[in-house]
Parts: sequence; C-alpha cells; structure tokens
Amino acid sequence: MDLTPQQKQEIEDSRAARSQTRRATVPALEEILYEAIPVLDHGFVRTIDYMGDDAAIVQAARVSYGKGTKKVSDDAGLINYLLRHRHTTPFEMCEIKYHIKVPIFIARQWIRHRTANVNEYSARYSVLDREFYIPEASQLAMQSTQNHQGRGALLEGEEAQRVLEILKEDATRNYDHYVEMLNEDPNGDIIDQDRSGLARELARMNLTLNAYTQWYWKIDLHNLLHFLSLRADRHAQYEIRVYADAMLETVKRWVPIAYEAFLQYRIGGVDLSASALSIVRKMLSGEPVTQEDSGMSKREWRELMATLGREE
Amino acid sequence: MDLTPQQKQEIEDSRAARSQTRRATVPALEEILYEAIPVLDHGFVRTIDYMGDDAAIVQAARVSYGKGTKKVSDDAGLINYLLRHRHTTPFEMCEIKYHIKVPIFIARQWIRHRTANVNEYSARYSVLDREFYIPEASQLAMQSTQNHQGRGALLEGEEAQRVLEILKEDATRNYDHYVEMLNEDPNGDIIDQDRSGLARELARMNLTLNAYTQWYWKIDLHNLLHFLSLRADRHAQYEIRVYADAMLETVKRWVPIAYEAFLQYRIGGVDLSASALSIVRKMLSGEPVTQEDSGMSKREWRELMATLGREE
Amino acid sequence: MDLTPQQKQEIEDSRAARSQTRRATVPALEEILYEAIPVLDHGFVRTIDYMGDDAAIVQAARVSYGKGTKKVSDDAGLINYLLRHRHTTPFEMCEIKYHIKVPIFIARQWIRHRTANVNEYSARYSVLDREFYIPEASQLAMQSTQNHQGRGALLEGEEAQRVLEILKEDATRNYDHYVEMLNEDPNGDIIDQDRSGLARELARMNLTLNAYTQWYWKIDLHNLLHFLSLRADRHAQYEIRVYADAMLETVKRWVPIAYEAFLQYRIGGVDLSASALSIVRKMLSGEPVTQEDSGMSKREWRELMATLGREE
Amino acid sequence: MDLTPQQKQEIEDSRAARSQTRRATVPALEEILYEAIPVLDHGFVRTIDYMGDDAAIVQAARVSYGKGTKKVSDDAGLINYLLRHRHTTPFEMCEIKYHIKVPIFIARQWIRHRTANVNEYSARYSVLDREFYIPEASQLAMQSTQNHQGRGALLEGEEAQRVLEILKEDATRNYDHYVEMLNEDPNGDIIDQDRSGLARELARMNLTLNAYTQWYWKIDLHNLLHFLSLRADRHAQYEIRVYADAMLETVKRWVPIAYEAFLQYRIGGVDLSASALSIVRKMLSGEPVTQEDSGMSKREWRELMATLGREE
Repeated sequence: MDLTPQQKQEIEDSRAARSQTRRATVPALEEILYEAIPVLDHGFVRTIDYMGDDAAIVQAARVSYGKGTKKVSDDAGLINYLLRHRHTTPFEMCEIKYHIKVPIFIARQWIRHRTANVNEYSARYSVLDREFYIPEASQLAMQSTQNHQGRGALLEGEEAQRVLEILKEDATRNYDHYVEMLNEDPNGDIIDQDRSGLARELARMNLTLNAYTQWYWKIDLHNLLHFLSLRADRHAQYEIRVYADAMLETVKRWVPIAYEAFLQYRIGGVDLSASALSIVRKMLSGEPVTQEDSGMSKREWRELMATLGREE
Repeated sequence: MDLTPQQKQEIEDSRAARSQTRRATVPALEEILYEAIPVLDHGFVRTIDYMGDDAAIVQAARVSYGKGTKKVSDDAGLINYLLRHRHTTPFEMCEIKYHIKVPIFIARQWIRHRTANVNEYSARYSVLDREFYIPEASQLAMQSTQNHQGRGALLEGEEAQRVLEILKEDATRNYDHYVEMLNEDPNGDIIDQDRSGLARELARMNLTLNAYTQWYWKIDLHNLLHFLSLRADRHAQYEIRVYADAMLETVKRWVPIAYEAFLQYRIGGVDLSASALSIVRKMLSGEPVTQEDSGMSKREWRELMATLGREE
Repeated sequence: MDLTPQQKQEIEDSRAARSQTRRATVPALEEILYEAIPVLDHGFVRTIDYMGDDAAIVQAARVSYGKGTKKVSDDAGLINYLLRHRHTTPFEMCEIKYHIKVPIFIARQWIRHRTANVNEYSARYSVLDREFYIPEASQLAMQSTQNHQGRGALLEGEEAQRVLEILKEDATRNYDHYVEMLNEDPNGDIIDQDRSGLARELARMNLTLNAYTQWYWKIDLHNLLHFLSLRADRHAQYEIRVYADAMLETVKRWVPIAYEAFLQYRIGGVDLSASALSIVRKMLSGEPVTQEDSGMSKREWRELMATLGREE
Repeated sequence: MDLTPQQKQEIEDSRAARSQTRRATVPALEEILYEAIPVLDHGFVRTIDYMGDDAAIVQAARVSYGKGTKKVSDDAGLINYLLRHRHTTPFEMCEIKYHIKVPIFIARQWIRHRTANVNEYSARYSVLDREFYIPEASQLAMQSTQNHQGRGALLEGEEAQRVLEILKEDATRNYDHYVEMLNEDPNGDIIDQDRSGLARELARMNLTLNAYTQWYWKIDLHNLLHFLSLRADRHAQYEIRVYADAMLETVKRWVPIAYEAFLQYRIGGVDLSASALSIVRKMLSGEPVTQEDSGMSKREWRELMATLGREE
C-alpha cells in the first residue's frame, strides 16, 4: 500500500487538528479516521468522513413510528426489528465516505452499484502511477469446473510461474509504453523536449486492467450493507471480497449494534423458497421427502440440504 | 412553530454535550444545529447533522482531476469552475440532514424530488397533532389569469374572511372527527372506555391536506442545490418557497463559497435557447430583430426581452 | 370506477388502431391494454404501455453471462436461477407503464418507492373531481391491539354507522367548500361572475386525504416486483394491497415465467436469520430447542414456529 | 464492426417476424430496429426496443396539468414549453434500450451516468473476443496545452507511427497471453489438454483498456437527453462523442419533436451567469464594459465574448 506524501500529510494534520462538534460522534471510528487499511498489494480503504451512529438509526425510526415505538424498550431490539422486517429507511440516515484504491477490473465490478456518490481519479487529467495488482501465488486458481464464474483448484509450479511472469511483464511493459507515449512522467514532467506527447485521454488505453485507480466513494448505511451482503459473500470474487471485509471492520466500529444485526439477519441468514419451506415443514413433521418428488432440480436440492446441514 | 417537550430537551442536551472530532467541522452551522427555524404558522426547518464543507468539495475535485488541478490557485476559483461547467459529483460529497415540519399538500410536492432519504412520521402508527396550516390574509390570492399554476391579485374583505372561516372550521371539525373515530387522543390515551376506535391507518383519511406532517430529510449538496434552484424560484408556490429560503440560510452558513457560486451561476443566471442566443448576437451587432421574424412565440419573445431588460 | 369521456375514447381508439411492430409483443397483455381494472370504489389500474417480455430477461442474462449460460437449458430454469440468486439486472430490462387512480393517503405511501417515474395530476393546474374513498363496512376495522400499524376486529353496528357518516359528510362538505372557494366547477367554468376565486394551489388544502388523485407510473420489472413483494404482503394496508393484487394480475399476463418464479422465491418464500437457521438444523437433528435457550425474543420465536408450521 | 452469427440471425428473424400491437409505434425507428450503426473500428449502437413516442410525452404532460393544458394548441408547442421550463417528468415516460459495443476505457466514462439499467458482458463468465480499439491517425492528438483534459494538435510522422505500433503490439500480445493463461479460446474450447487454465475472473486483468466490451443499456428519454447533452458536447472525448452522435440519430427518428426542442434548448443553448447577464444588459444599453471591471476572470470573459460572437 502506497500513500502519496500529500496523503501522509493529510493524516498527520488530522491527528493534530481536532474540533468541537455537537454532532453525533463515534470515538471508535474517529480512531482510524483517514488511516489506510491495506488491501491487496497496493490498495487500501480509508474512512474519510461519516454522519450518524446507531442512535441516529433509532432516532429516525422514532420519527417514523412516533409514539408507536415506545414499547420497544431498547435500541438493539429496535434495530434488530427494523432489519428483520426490512424497514430500510432509518439505515439511510447514516452516511460514510471512503477513499479507496483498487485495481481497475475490480473497480468495474464495484461501480455497478449505482446508489453511491463517486469521484474517481481521472486519467484524462492526470498520469496514473506505476502500480498494478499481481496476485499472490495462493490466489492463482483454475477456472472452476462447476461454477461458471468461480475458481477451482490452485495452479501449480511452472504453470503458476508462467502466469505471474506474464502478468508482471505485460503490465510493466504496457505502463512503460504509456509513459513513453505521453512523453511525461507521473509528476507531469516532460521526458524528452524534442518529442510531442500523446493526449492523456488516449494514452491510458494502453494500460492493463490490473492498474490501480482510486476514488472517493460515499454511500448511506442501508446501501452499504446491501453492497457488503453481496460482496462479502463467499461467491464474490476474492479481489473485491477483501475490500468488503475491510469495510466491514469499519462498520463494526461505526455502528456496532447495526453490525451485529447485519450478521444475524443478512450475512448469517438464508432465503427459503416456497418449495424449500414446504420441504422443511415436511421434514420437521417426519414426512419422507426426496429430491425426486420435491419439484426441485438436483442442484437446488443439493444446495438446500447443505444449508440445512443434511449433506450425506 | 411548536416543538414537543422531547425536541426541546434534545436541543438542550446538544447545547451542553460537545464532542471532539477529526472530521471537517463548520462552526457557523454548529451554532444553529438542532435549532428550529420557524416557517409558516406551525412548521420549521431544523439542521440535524451534516458531513463535509467547502474544502470537501475541493478535496473531491482534486482526487478526480489529480495533478490537473494544480493551476487553479484557490478554492473559490475551483468551486466556481465546477459549478459553471456542471461538474456536479464533487458537490455530492457533502451531505446534510434536516428535520422538517410541513403541511401535507406541500409535503406532496416536496417528495417528488426522489434523490433524498426520508423518514416521515407515520399516521398508521401514531396520532397526528392538532395542527394545520391557515394562510395569512396576505397570501389569499386569486387564481392567476395568465399562469395556469400561479396566483394573481389578493382576495379582499368578505371573500377573504369566508375563505379563512372555511379553512379553519373544516380542518378543526375534521380533526375532531378524526379523534372521535380513533377514540384516542394524541397522547395515545383512550377517550371513552365503552367504545372501540377505528384503526389509525383508516381514521387518518378524514384529515385535511393542510394538516402538518414531519420528516427527517437527508440529501447531498448537489441535489439540495437542484431542489433549491427549483423551489426558491419565484415560480414556486409560496408555501414551499419559504422552506427553500430557510434552507438557503443554512447552506450559506455551511458552505459559503459554494453558496456564492450557486447565486452567481444558478439563482441569478439564465438559460438562453439557440434562437435567443442568435437574437442577442444580432442585437449586439446592431441588426434589427423583431418578434415576427425571430421564430419565437409572443410569450417566449416577451420573456426574453424581460430577461434582457428591454421591456417597453 | 369512473373513466372520463376522454379516457373512454382513448380505449375505443386503441381497440381499433393496431400497428405492426418488430418489438417483443405479448398478446395476453395486449388484450387488456388501456382497459381499467377497478380497484376500491372509484380507483383503477390501467396498463398503458410495456417493453420486453420473459424472453427479454433471458436475452439480457445471456449478454451478461455470454457463453457461460449455454448449459442452462431452458428459459424458466434461467429465470428461476436469476431470481433465486438475486441477479436482478436482467429484470430491469423490462418496463411497464400504468395509469393509476388512488386515494391521496394511499398515494402518499406509494410514492415512497422512489425508483419509478411519475406524472401526477396537479391540483395546482386543475380542479379535482368530486370523488373520495369511503370504505366498505367490511373494512371498518379497529386498531390492532398487537400490531401498532395494523387492524384488528371489525367495528359493529352504530359505531360503524357513525364512522361512515363522518367520512361521507366531511369529505362532501370539504369538497363543496373547495369548489365554493375556487368559484369554479370541475370543468373550469366560473360559478358566480360577481365573486373572485381562490387560487387552485391554495384551495386544494381543504380537501380530505381520501380524495382521489391519479398518475402515470412507469417502473422496471425488478423494482415492480420489489414493490409488489412489500405491498401484496399481508402486512400491507388493505387499501394498497388491492392495487398490488391488480398489478400482479397484469404481471401474470405480461411475464408468466417471471411471475411463477416470483411466487416461488419471493411471495411464498421466507428469510431465516442465523439463529433461526441454527434452530431449524437442531430440530432436524432431533436436538431439543426451546425459546428460552434460543436467544430469540418470545415474539421472534413465535413468528418462527408459525413459519415452520409448529404452532402449538 | 463485427456482429456474431447469433446477432446476425436475430436481425434476420426480426425482419421477418412482425407482430400486431396496440402500443404507440414509431415506423421510422422500427426501420432500424436491431440494425447495428457502426461506431469506431469495431463498436456499434443497436436499438433493441423502445416505449413511447412524442405523443406519450404530451399525454403524460396532460395528465399532470389536466385541463390546465387545453390552451397550448399543439404538441410541438407543449414539448418546447416543457423542455424550456425544465419540466422533465413527461420525458421520463419514454424508454429506449440499446445494445452497445464500446472500448473499456470509454465504457468506464459511460457508466458514471447512474440513471440507466445495464447488463454488461461478463469476463468472469465468458472469454472476450480478440477486438481492441486502435485510433485512426487523424485522432492521434497531443495533450492540449490549454485544457487539462483535452487534445491539441495532431501527432505527425514517426511519432504517430510509433504510437500506433505500441497500441497494436501491446493489445495483441496481451490478448494472446490472456488466451494462453486461460488455455481456452473464445469459443470456450480447451487449447492444450495437458495444461490447466487460469480462472477467467483473473486472466481478464491482463487485457488492455482498449479491449471491447458490450452491454444492454436502457434509459428513459429525460436521462438520455441529459447524457447526450454532456457527451455530444464538443468538450467530450471524441471516442464517446461518436456514440452520442449515433444515438442522437436514433432519437431523431424516435421522437422528432423532442429532438428539435432538444437542439433548440439544450445543444444550441447557453447558460449565462448572473454577471454575464448583467454584462449583456449593459452592452445592449450601450454602456461600456471591460473585462477589468466585469468581475470576471480573463478566461470566463473570453468564453463569454466567444459565446456572444464578440471575439476581436
């Protein structure tokens, strides 16, 4: 993980400068404000700012439900209730802003979530740094034979070596050519006064998809939890899951009650279809059920039995 | 304007309790945090929380434009540039949360702006208070004869009296009947133990559209400015414009540089169509132009001449 | 349900006029295009236009998953897979447009779903018709004693009579006063040439919340299904559920495969929390479980047992 | 531009198969439905489906403004009025769906517009084709010295040759290595049975940013016009402007009246700031104005004079 001198200064400054505020403040999150949590080989997640806390969720719910909430005695009970019944709007009252550094091919997955505000580093205006993601050997998996979008067993020995060699050489060469075409280094200094440089908005097309980009990404808690439920999931690609995991740590510091409810009702929970529910009811009554007469495909049946801890 | 005892306590508490924070903090806005700015006869605008400041806009722009921004020497120059060229995403990095109390017929206009987060007081859960908007006599205007959605001259004397009488009597009677049907007062206490009460979600239908509702409303600065450009406009209905004006005051305290740019490039600015631009160019060259050969309708021509200060 | 002469003409015209198109076309939905499905006493749901069909969902999924989809042999299997795994974007490729007439207090619930396009009849521009919702006696329920937002047993005899009397008289009187203040009838004709009329944008505040409004409402299939999963639910207020039910009928005609998958994976399905899943696994293994050592509140336990068909 | 055999078949099929519909139908757009408009060296824009037409905009406006619209005699007048006064919701009642093939670095700009529905070809599931964007020599511009995000003069001779050589060689080599790592060709066939292939979701990171991707992109007319006003603008990057231009042609066929209004009030129009308006008024009154006492920066003054056709 590589912070620029300017980013390091920003951290120093913020450690020194503290202000008084009447706003809701969360000491556990203040502790890591501006600090970079390293992710992958050059990436990071930095919490830059936040609004609200667990109490803000409760406060918003009490506005909605007015005197109707007076029976729910404590905040945790109310937050659990809200998440369980998918009353999502009180969670939208909290907001968080991150500074993220991430490889472009992962940024492309990430940006598909449209409910956030984004300011991305623009390679039309500025020159990207010489940084690209090279997986660790422990991540060089084969294509899964079962899952069209997943990974299977690890590549070994020479095959893994060859992959790493290709990734490093191609990214490096393409970056060098990028700088050559620009005739400009990452500081914006001209390299060869006798040549002209290609426009930045064109030269960038030579970069590889593992080059790092960065952005400010601001989102409300409801939409963040939805993002995390998809991206911290074991089906998510490893390279985005590690970012989701880092953000989960910040959520735990920020809104610890909502975080626990999220583990309980989303991350650790499951959806049962109408058929699955009917099968579970039969099993509980001691009625015999088989895949053949369940109406489920073999795959769906297998997934259900795994969920219920009934694998043979 | 009527705050509940609980809301008054919240203000007291927040005046006393201050926290240390490393976040961007705006003293001028902190001063009025939680305080209610009165609007209409019972409504208000309270700033509850905020994230970011003028510097956060600049910071986000510098992430986007990277080293490309170094020539723009000062923050005001950069913010002006962003607003002038409709580079809107840096303004999305600031967020504000209001507590609003507003008559229902105005709430219905307001909610058409879909880019905010809302938690509204629910009359399914709780009983509404006995409060409804009655216009001042100086607002009792006739239907405009020129503008299908506007107001014309004031009603006078007996006609105005009759309107006020109707509005007060009907709102009061309907509210009394609402409480009678509920068999429950606004504190949730049963009125007559020998009767049953109608469900709240049904009884509310008897209320008039000038009954007050309230909500938490959270929005980013870009979308807030868009809302304000429409609702602080002189074509907006008076009853929503006064809320926009109150919020403009909070924006002035919160992000004074962006506020000035907003006055310059939105509130005080105008759009010229292709034809209008062509006419202005001709006028500046001394060429004669008339409505007849301008291609404009009489109305559009009249509006253009007013904009240019050329009314005869 | 009351259509205007103009709306009736529109239906007549569209029955006669058919065009040739190369677009995806759904005969079962074409049959009821423009026709009004009656809802409540004066409301309706009319399908005005649509884009896409079941095949469009499949087509979009095949663009996303490319050759990766070739193993999923049939459309129904693929659509089930998408809905089960919450791959929602292919459902966004279908769009539908409704014309809805609905009481204002229900319109206010409805509009909280922000992911649709709306054009509502404006009472700033035009005079509303003399129509308001009066519930049938079979809907006059008491406030639930268990559920803060629900209905309990029916009101009976004189109490029900009194409620109906209030609702009718107040809505009628307030509407009459609305017209009197406007000095204008619903056709826009002046009533008394010697008086002035109050501006429409003001007079409307005297109307009751059971007055009918209408709008065009356009939404993609993913967001429509989300809306229906909340509003066709038995916890939803009856007066919005009947609209959801009417729209479900149109969905069944429009995208029958997606409709069946929706019943299977949303309407008929349930969410289990981490604790609930753990309890189900224990029950299936024959381990004893009780509410006391489950970590669940009594209410949550009771709900789970009901879901599993284990009520005592 | 390269269509797959399957896409060509789709076009053939749709030419033959026509259905009867009661929906609004636009013959001029039907003519080019499914056909690919070539853009850049391998890209295209294909209109796949649409909903609504100019009359649907008018119909939605008439719902909103009810009897209040009866004075606006014709559709063009009403559509002009709506666009002029930024009454945007009636334009949201029309929807269009495109199939787009576009280089990844342009797709990344494009996706920043969040108000559309997208299904993109996934390189986690499938292997990308051997296609990448190589600019024509007439597009190989230097970095602008005036504009941080723009292009200046053309590169010439050897310098241009060198750039083209780099772009071709690097993209080709990286693609070849991508296939080698996958051990799989674009048809999904294994290349070497004795080797293992790297997972697709990893191998893709070696591709260059000028590789082509494709997606279905569905958007309402209001948001499409907003997109086009930014991307058909002369400040937009050439490689996205050509897509905007192709889409403008489809808009002209689809909603010709809205298209003309768009040219008049958006593309051909300008925004004047408060200061700019004040200067124009002074100039029209014959008062002397200079940059020095205008309060404008030199750059803003120069831009205004250019807009007014007053360059010296």
